[in-house]
Order: sequence, then C-alpha cells, then structure tokens
Amino acid sequence: MTEIADALSFFIEADRLKAVERRNRLADGSRRENTAEHSWHLGIAAMVLAPFATEPVHLETAVCMALVHDIVEIDAGDTFAYDDAPASVAAKRAREESAADRLFGLLPTKTGGWMRRLWEEYEAGETPEARFVMAIDRLAPMLLNLAEGCTTWREHGITADRAEARNRPHIEGPLPEAWAHAAALLAQYQAT
Amino acid sequence: MTEIADALSFFIEADRLKAVERRNRLADGSRRENTAEHSWHLGIAAMVLAPFATEPVHLETAVCMALVHDIVEIDAGDTFAYDDAPASVAAKRAREESAADRLFGLLPTKTGGWMRRLWEEYEAGETPEARFVMAIDRLAPMLLNLAEGCTTWREHGITADRAEARNRPHIEGPLPEAWAHAAALLAQYQAT
Repeated sequence: MTEIADALSFFIEADRLKAVERRNRLADGSRRENTAEHSWHLGIAAMVLAPFATEPVHLETAVCMALVHDIVEIDAGDTFAYDDAPASVAAKRAREESAADRLFGLLPTKTGGWMRRLWEEYEAGETPEARFVMAIDRLAPMLLNLAEGCTTWREHGITADRAEARNRPHIEGPLPEAWAHAAALLAQYQAT
Repeated sequence: MTEIADALSFFIEADRLKAVERRNRLADGSRRENTAEHSWHLGIAAMVLAPFATEPVHLETAVCMALVHDIVEIDAGDTFAYDDAPASVAAKRAREESAADRLFGLLPTKTGGWMRRLWEEYEAGETPEARFVMAIDRLAPMLLNLAEGCTTWREHGITADRAEARNRPHIEGPLPEAWAHAAALLAQYQAT
C-alpha cells in the first residue's frame, strides 16, 4: 500500500475506539462514556488546564498524547481504574503492547513511531507531559462521576477514601488547584 | 469564581458535545457519530495526515483547532454539510456566534480568548491550518460514510456528483493524495 492508504486505513481503524465503553458516565448521567470522546475531552482539558500545571508542559506533546493515550483499547479494551490487582495490571500491559504493535504498525513508519513513542512516554509517566496527561486522565472521570451523582462509584462500592487514595497521588502534584477543587466535591460525596 | 473553577466549569460544560448527534454514521454503520468523538477523530487525522499537507501546518495549532472547531454545537447544534441554503448558513452563523460568546466566556480570559481565536481562524479559513482542518473535516465523514455503505447519502439523496462538488474544493488543494484516495472510493459509489 502507499503511505496515504496506510494513514487512511489507520484513520478508519481508529474509528473503533468510539465503540469502547468506559465505566464512568457522562456528566448528566445519561449513558456511559466511550474512549474516543473521553480522549477528546482530555485534549480539551489539556488546553484549558495547562496554565495551572506545576511543571511547564509542551502543549503539542500533551494534547497529542491525550489523543493517543488510550488508542490501544481498540484491541485491549478498557480496564477499570480501580482494578489494580497485580495479575490484572500485568495482563493489561501485555494486551496493550500487542495492540500497540498492531495499531501503530498500520501507519507509515515515521508517524507510527512518533505515535508509539507518545504512548510509551505516557505509560512510563516520567516526563512533565506524561504526568500532566495522567493527572487529567484521573481528574476527568472523577469530575464527571461527581457531577452525575457518583453512580459508578456506588455501583462498584468505591468509598471516598478509596477514590482519594487512587486519584490524589496522580492529580495533586501536577495540578494542585484542580485537586483542591475535586477534593472539595469529593468531601460532599463522603458526607452523603 | 476562581480561574480554576472557571476552567473546570468549562470542562464540564464541554461534556455536552458528546450528546450532539451528527448525520453520518460510524464506519461500521452501527450508530450516528457524535460531535465530541468526531472532534477526537479529526485530532487523530491531523496527526496522521499533516505529513501529506500541501502547505506545511503547525501541528499544535491544527490539532487544537480540530478539538474546538465544533464546540459551539453545544448551543447551536449540528448543521448537515449539504444544507447550504443561504438562509440556513446565515442562521447557523448567528447561532454559533452567540454560542461562542457564552462558551468561551466561561473560561479564564486568556484561555477563552485563545480558544475563540482558534475557532474564528478555522471559520475564516484563511490560514494553512484552517484550510487543513477544514479539509479533514470534510474528508472524515466522507470516508466513514463510504466505509459503511453510504447510508447517510442515500437517506438524503446525495449523488456522487454532489458529494464531489461539496467536498473536492475543500480537500483536494490541502490534501491531494487523500482526495485521490477518497475519489477512487467515491467512483465505486457512483457505479453501484
């Protein structure tokens, strides 16, 4: 195939991310979110929250990373953020590596390599952009869940303490003001 | 409100773009696309198609523009690309200006101004990035529609000639190889 055919075949394959259902619901509670629209929402979050980041972030890197950070879910599926058993984490990692091989392998070499490196940078979590995108990736479902009355947490028996333990370490450092805002909302969940 | 509260209130408001339904379907034909996931897909398209652009594009600008280009649809709704009656176009413009005032007005001044300028740059279509994003905004639903058997075109009586007339002027200049690919698929629709 030509390079343009490869790029467009990746574009069509990427469409399947719209069918991957996440656990959390939209802010109005009407339905569960899919991973494609979640990834868009993270791109928007990166744009509006970059001015609040503790470490300066390169916006192009952060936004592009947000758009690709979950694309491996096309093959690997979504894993609930609170499913942190070691066997689950290891199995997820293996599924996602295979998915990355296949999906980024569809693209022209240069673009595929760049996108894979962005995904790996995100997974490694060792750059300001990766820490920032990971923070908004935790913050976004937390805020949506709090907006719609915490259905997902109630369904899965997630207490406010557990939500804090799972999210605070990722959010507070990169985005302290955003964490303070989310924590104030979380305190209301605890109280009811 | 504080600036972080403003930024996060915009983030929650933006969630409503996931409920705006477009005319075209996903590539597998299973359901109509919503504008949030469409905007994600354009961000991905910008990333993979930038190497094929006739005019060099600044990727950060193009990707961020793709993410915000339809956000006014939260208030203004989606307008079918083939609804080009002058009264419809004028009414759409007025609805979208009001939507931009309200939505970008939710944000801290600096971020809101930047996002509004990105949206206005897209609408004006006078920069390489705006022409590029407009090209992928036409290309994306065309490719999805062709992938799923052209249901939307059949429903609305859109002939191959009309699809070409509506899309070619926007796509061929900025992305000639992508247009050639789409045109070859379009020729098959014409033949059946």
